[in-house]
Amino acid sequence: MSIATMKEQVLEANLALPRHNLVTFTWGNVSAVDRAQGLIAIKPSGVEYDGMTVDDIVVVELESGRVVEGSKKPSSDTATHLALYRAFEDIGGIVHTHSRHATIWAQAGQDIPAWGTTHADYFYGTIPCTRLMTEAEIAQDYEHNTGEVIIETFRTRGISPASIPAVLVNAHGPFAWGKDADSAVHNAVVLEEIAYMGIFSRQLSPDITRMQQPLLDKHFLRKHGANAYYGQ
Amino acid sequence: MSIATMKEQVLEANLALPRHNLVTFTWGNVSAVDRAQGLIAIKPSGVEYDGMTVDDIVVVELESGRVVEGSKKPSSDTATHLALYRAFEDIGGIVHTHSRHATIWAQAGQDIPAWGTTHADYFYGTIPCTRLMTEAEIAQDYEHNTGEVIIETFRTRGISPASIPAVLVNAHGPFAWGKDADSAVHNAVVLEEIAYMGIFSRQLSPDITRMQQPLLDKHFLRKHGANAYYGQ
Amino acid sequence: MSIATMKEQVLEANLALPRHNLVTFTWGNVSAVDRAQGLIAIKPSGVEYDGMTVDDIVVVELESGRVVEGSKKPSSDTATHLALYRAFEDIGGIVHTHSRHATIWAQAGQDIPAWGTTHADYFYGTIPCTRLMTEAEIAQDYEHNTGEVIIETFRTRGISPASIPAVLVNAHGPFAWGKDADSAVHNAVVLEEIAYMGIFSRQLSPDITRMQQPLLDKHFLRKHGANAYYGQ
Amino acid sequence: MSIATMKEQVLEANLALPRHNLVTFTWGNVSAVDRAQGLIAIKPSGVEYDGMTVDDIVVVELESGRVVEGSKKPSSDTATHLALYRAFEDIGGIVHTHSRHATIWAQAGQDIPAWGTTHADYFYGTIPCTRLMTEAEIAQDYEHNTGEVIIETFRTRGISPASIPAVLVNAHGPFAWGKDADSAVHNAVVLEEIAYMGIFSRQLSPDITRMQQPLLDKHFLRKHGANAYYGQ
Repeated sequence: MSIATMKEQVLEANLALPRHNLVTFTWGNVSAVDRAQGLIAIKPSGVEYDGMTVDDIVVVELESGRVVEGSKKPSSDTATHLALYRAFEDIGGIVHTHSRHATIWAQAGQDIPAWGTTHADYFYGTIPCTRLMTEAEIAQDYEHNTGEVIIETFRTRGISPASIPAVLVNAHGPFAWGKDADSAVHNAVVLEEIAYMGIFSRQLSPDITRMQQPLLDKHFLRKHGANAYYGQ
Repeated sequence: MSIATMKEQVLEANLALPRHNLVTFTWGNVSAVDRAQGLIAIKPSGVEYDGMTVDDIVVVELESGRVVEGSKKPSSDTATHLALYRAFEDIGGIVHTHSRHATIWAQAGQDIPAWGTTHADYFYGTIPCTRLMTEAEIAQDYEHNTGEVIIETFRTRGISPASIPAVLVNAHGPFAWGKDADSAVHNAVVLEEIAYMGIFSRQLSPDITRMQQPLLDKHFLRKHGANAYYGQ
Repeated sequence: MSIATMKEQVLEANLALPRHNLVTFTWGNVSAVDRAQGLIAIKPSGVEYDGMTVDDIVVVELESGRVVEGSKKPSSDTATHLALYRAFEDIGGIVHTHSRHATIWAQAGQDIPAWGTTHADYFYGTIPCTRLMTEAEIAQDYEHNTGEVIIETFRTRGISPASIPAVLVNAHGPFAWGKDADSAVHNAVVLEEIAYMGIFSRQLSPDITRMQQPLLDKHFLRKHGANAYYGQ
Repeated sequence: MSIATMKEQVLEANLALPRHNLVTFTWGNVSAVDRAQGLIAIKPSGVEYDGMTVDDIVVVELESGRVVEGSKKPSSDTATHLALYRAFEDIGGIVHTHSRHATIWAQAGQDIPAWGTTHADYFYGTIPCTRLMTEAEIAQDYEHNTGEVIIETFRTRGISPASIPAVLVNAHGPFAWGKDADSAVHNAVVLEEIAYMGIFSRQLSPDITRMQQPLLDKHFLRKHGANAYYGQ
């Protein structure tokens, strides 16, 4: 993939955020990685979506974090994206938003359990919420450490980022990812949808338990993996 | 009705879903049946509403499930539609969505009781939620068995699909139907509306009981049946 | 006011309902009265807002309920409007909707207390919810009796329809009124807004009490009555 | 800044309110101050946003409250704005709305605690709700006293209006401010967003505690103050 194509895809994915009502003002950012070239493309920091062009997209080295193309500063969350790309080797795009209902769960410090097939179609189990970050993690390299606490959450809980392509950062908000920037945004939309539904499903049934495992298996696997049969 | 007309009606009914905010991405499908010809027309699987044309609509035999027209795969939920058409002999159109508030009740595993005239105008009593499907039902012929568990719910509870044109599939979402595809979508919109209102009516009055039976009778029967006097 | 003018105002007020998101499909109706001529103009029954013209508006005699102009059947709720116009002699327009949040309170069978200045700017105290209608009231002259139960609510509780221009009909939905059709719609919009806010104010503060009476007085009286000073 | 420029900015900020869904009808007003000239510009009372022009904006003396330009009456809340400008010497713009979710907290009479980084990015701690105003405060100079109770809240609780650029007036609604009219509106949008999220975060976690102080510090200070590094 050329850098120009990657920047174009990242621009389109960023512009999709307001269309899907995932962002207020400039509160969101999408990136994509080209692993062969060792580069990521990402939204600039604090720039309005309205009027954003491909020239605003910043290209950064995956390993060093050095800006190699673009006159603007990259998103303040760039170090989080870089940490995730390095640790989760199969992902191609990442999105961070403060979308309302996913953020509500993050502020509540709670995982989102799988309560229905909408969830199961995209997430193969509970979407985890990280622990609170420590004072030391916040004081130094905060954005990098945000990535580290996400990685720790997946490692210690034995969750595969390919099966659960999203996380809630405690007292902060969601990150989602996918095979590319567009699919990351797609997963962020689904996350927001199930976050909304989960709030009220639990209101109706305070003792709600997880859905039956065979139904979770069925829905995830009919859309993902070798035997998928959904779609054309 | 010609096949061309049926496909046109099914296309229009599918395109109505995003207009009524009942779907995210491709999560919904509408079908119609022509019982004289033994055919149904249904949305293709996983295709975007935006840009969908009448040529995308797939025609399937009611009894065999064989595709007889269209180059795309029919909706992955086709077997559910077929089971319902075979069992509920008076219905002409079916819609399945993951509309937010109906899905919330489905995820909570709860029936939607009749709490007001908005409900009574369209549904003559409680809208049932099915039992959870078993591992065996999910493992083999899952989509067909989804139809079977709906049919079982109506049979064992003595509910008429003509009086209650919708159901919630437990841990999944709603199906609605009607005399044709358009009326099925109409009922799906009403279901979503009363699902929303029910969540908060119960929040305000946790001990809310069903509305008075004479009012339920009055509203349903002034719009439906031999003595209806609503409309022109 | 000429009949043509009255019909025009009623058309405009009906078309304002979907613009303010107060209605789904055809679930609402607005009327106005010309007391000098003893006539009301009202929306036809079950007709879509989209494409409605002034010729669809029906003119009905205030005392007899006889249609004197228009080829369509008047709203099925016409008898409710007529009863209210006869009993509440200072009102000039009435609106009925199933707007979501006002209907939620109606389904819960609860009054909406005055919890803030948004309420106080338009409603001088609690907005009442009627008692449930009886089997006899529903069996015969249901729509007329809907008006009677509203009138009874205001009479027995000593509420002035000029000070509280709206009511919730138990297990049904709201009616609102005003000096003309436009002002009735205005009050219906405010009712919906405070109905929404009330649900969640009580969620945050389950023991919430009514706002201080002097603040209620201040806000209602700075917009209404002889010493009003709000606006131009 | 010329008076013409100030009026233009105030017009633009007022027109931004309906775009951000912060107002119903005319329920909101924005002002700006020019401290060198001792003048404020403010929305006229009870005028629709649709069709409002720069000639509708009213210019008022900061100290006397005397109208010096404009043929319309200034907002009925002008005396509140004036009191705040006099007491909070670093602010340049003020906005008052009845935005739904901030008003819900005001009606509940509760502060909005800092539960996440969305809050921390703009508000350096709890957003206070004032005490209820007394009968005497309401009877005489009500709008001026609304300002005084806000000022008292900040003084007695030791809160800096620069760090917490918004307040909830008990049983009424929010005021927000900023360095100019545009930034005041920006803060009002954020306030509404966190008010929404707070309602449901607390629903999910009734015992939710404030976010960790170091994270609050980090997010507020990376966007505000001498060491800010967010944006371009």
